[in-house]
Amino acid sequence: MADAPKANAVVSQSGGPTGVINASLVGVIEEAKKHPEIKTLYGAIHAVSGIVKEDFIDLSKVSNDTLDIVAASPSSALGSSRDKPNAEYCQKILDVFKKQDIRYFFYIGGNDSANTCFIINNMARDAGYDLRAFHVPKTIDNDLLVTDHCPGFGTAAKFVACALMGDDLDNRALPGIKVDCIMGRHAGFLTAAAALGRKSEIDGPHLVYFPERPVSMEQILSDVIKVYEKIGRCVIATSEGISDTDGVTWAQKVTQTDEHDAHGNVQLSGTGALADYLAMRIRAKLKVKRVRADTFGYLQRSFAGLQSSVDAAEARNCGAEAVKLAMTNQSGSVAIKRLATGKDYKAELFRTDLANVAEKTKHMPDEFINEAGNGITDAFIEYALPLTGGLPKTAYLGK
Amino acid sequence: MADAPKANAVVSQSGGPTGVINASLVGVIEEAKKHPEIKTLYGAIHAVSGIVKEDFIDLSKVSNDTLDIVAASPSSALGSSRDKPNAEYCQKILDVFKKQDIRYFFYIGGNDSANTCFIINNMARDAGYDLRAFHVPKTIDNDLLVTDHCPGFGTAAKFVACALMGDDLDNRALPGIKVDCIMGRHAGFLTAAAALGRKSEIDGPHLVYFPERPVSMEQILSDVIKVYEKIGRCVIATSEGISDTDGVTWAQKVTQTDEHDAHGNVQLSGTGALADYLAMRIRAKLKVKRVRADTFGYLQRSFAGLQSSVDAAEARNCGAEAVKLAMTNQSGSVAIKRLATGKDYKAELFRTDLANVAEKTKHMPDEFINEAGNGITDAFIEYALPLTGGLPKTAYLGK
Repeated sequence: MADAPKANAVVSQSGGPTGVINASLVGVIEEAKKHPEIKTLYGAIHAVSGIVKEDFIDLSKVSNDTLDIVAASPSSALGSSRDKPNAEYCQKILDVFKKQDIRYFFYIGGNDSANTCFIINNMARDAGYDLRAFHVPKTIDNDLLVTDHCPGFGTAAKFVACALMGDDLDNRALPGIKVDCIMGRHAGFLTAAAALGRKSEIDGPHLVYFPERPVSMEQILSDVIKVYEKIGRCVIATSEGISDTDGVTWAQKVTQTDEHDAHGNVQLSGTGALADYLAMRIRAKLKVKRVRADTFGYLQRSFAGLQSSVDAAEARNCGAEAVKLAMTNQSGSVAIKRLATGKDYKAELFRTDLANVAEKTKHMPDEFINEAGNGITDAFIEYALPLTGGLPKTAYLGK
Repeated sequence: MADAPKANAVVSQSGGPTGVINASLVGVIEEAKKHPEIKTLYGAIHAVSGIVKEDFIDLSKVSNDTLDIVAASPSSALGSSRDKPNAEYCQKILDVFKKQDIRYFFYIGGNDSANTCFIINNMARDAGYDLRAFHVPKTIDNDLLVTDHCPGFGTAAKFVACALMGDDLDNRALPGIKVDCIMGRHAGFLTAAAALGRKSEIDGPHLVYFPERPVSMEQILSDVIKVYEKIGRCVIATSEGISDTDGVTWAQKVTQTDEHDAHGNVQLSGTGALADYLAMRIRAKLKVKRVRADTFGYLQRSFAGLQSSVDAAEARNCGAEAVKLAMTNQSGSVAIKRLATGKDYKAELFRTDLANVAEKTKHMPDEFINEAGNGITDAFIEYALPLTGGLPKTAYLGK
């Protein structure tokens, strides 16, 4: 193929923010400075919507000190967008690229972003325009194909694991039943991370429910009773995306329910609805007074000062790798290959075709979910624990 | 007064856990080892309920390595209780103390725990039994009298500030309206901490609502519209304990619940109802599509691996100070006096009478709340920021 063209580049960030998507951005910025082929690196504000509006900032003017702070900051420092460009939208993007002599496009996002790269790259090729379109992976859901895991997941997993470690100690101190509702509509990786801090059978979460395993309310209640009768308390981690055995999500059923709680109220229309509903059903069934529910919400993806060191480093490297790859390849998505796991965890990066990642969703493999469908396996711990960069030690003295 | 008696001691932890109540416990354990007057230091499991059941563990047998891990762990390592002992209950406690030759009682908790200490100490005095009853302060609400601030608050404040720093960056990336509901039924200190990470007027939270300032729904909606029209987004931090102008809490109006805990408090935690209701009202009024709500719940008081260094050190010192004071005083509560603030923050500990703390509640002083009742003042930042041990730096590159 042709030598890398001397031209401008644009980077932007798409979809839901993560704790390390800015580390990937900084990786792109730092690496771009090393390549004279890249004249000016622009940041597009609010993703593709900023590109079509030519809403750019010159990222070469940002100081190294600021870059380090940006890399450590959660959320998307260039702003984000939920736009999912169609062919017409992508044509506008390409028009801007031509107008601004932009021939490098680095897009940090999930499978939709990979698809945007894919469409634009095909359009450019058909138009005979030398564009290098690279996708840099980002999700907290860990639901991208090809890559061993996804930057953003390790940091969110650390947050969720630390939350459950604390919440389980809280539940030990004041025993009862606790429901924690965790992000992830289609993939259960992040919910599974709730159990990464468990040290023994009596540590919570005692039950974990995934989108990959439909579960009836009767089954959940029966599971909870079993745990409660055995140890006098129960901590439940559930994905927001769990569904009933008929395949309809519980969240959907809950928000359309006519059922009333013990006080005759329906309060099931908001974000806390699923967790509150589960708590209500458990309270009604078990006659246990102390039943509580929390929905972790956006804290899971944007919490200042909490990064997995492993995740942050990998995210930065993925950004840099995209720039390196663009010097010799037309397009691609950066992916991670695990070389060793456990304490010796080690990984390397490689390029995969955009088509392998675009619009595709990875789910939890069966080997990560226990037979009963209400807990994780050792294989998942081996897979996910290194990505958190290690969890804090905790201790409990009571019985 | 008489020399400190050679006898056994008991320590326990009461009420809602915090991120540093275990640091206070370890402070008591470490200091007790230095005083030969204390024969055996027992830990009572699940607070007063463990004392009457003589459910004790010998804390001298816990290794120093484990103690360091305990001190860094959230929640109450000895277990907790919501029991609020009456005279009869306290008499049973005193009977156990006599039976077990316990003459030192260290109780880590809030104003109810100070009151328990107060009652038992009076009973012992009337019975001519030389007991040294000391209260070690603990709350995330920061609502104890006399002390400048309360161990537990700084760590919870750090959590809430970091959460809002992240959430505000998230809201910048994907603009809309966000409601965050924060713990604190009667005192607004923790909700006020939501604004500690603000660096400029455009940083959120843009509106903060406290239990100390009743507010109508019309006022909230009008405030939100003003901010949204000005900057195109709005982040709101509200206490779970805010009330309408008629003095009835909004949470009560929203849920119409009659569930009370043992202390007669309406149960607000563990439900997303208030935040969801506010989001619903804002969505209906402003016709803005992107309105979201989160209720932080128990993560605020029990999150593994997140302590304020200042708070953790002070909590440990407070535990140790209680033991030192017990050598020369009959009873008391440990309190903190601030000697210098800002970067030079410095404090010392002193003893105050149990009666000064027992059952009393401190509220946010007027000087910490802005004139409109929807934000904090610089005086609050000066007061609270040092207690967080410092907040992470963050940056945003977009506009």
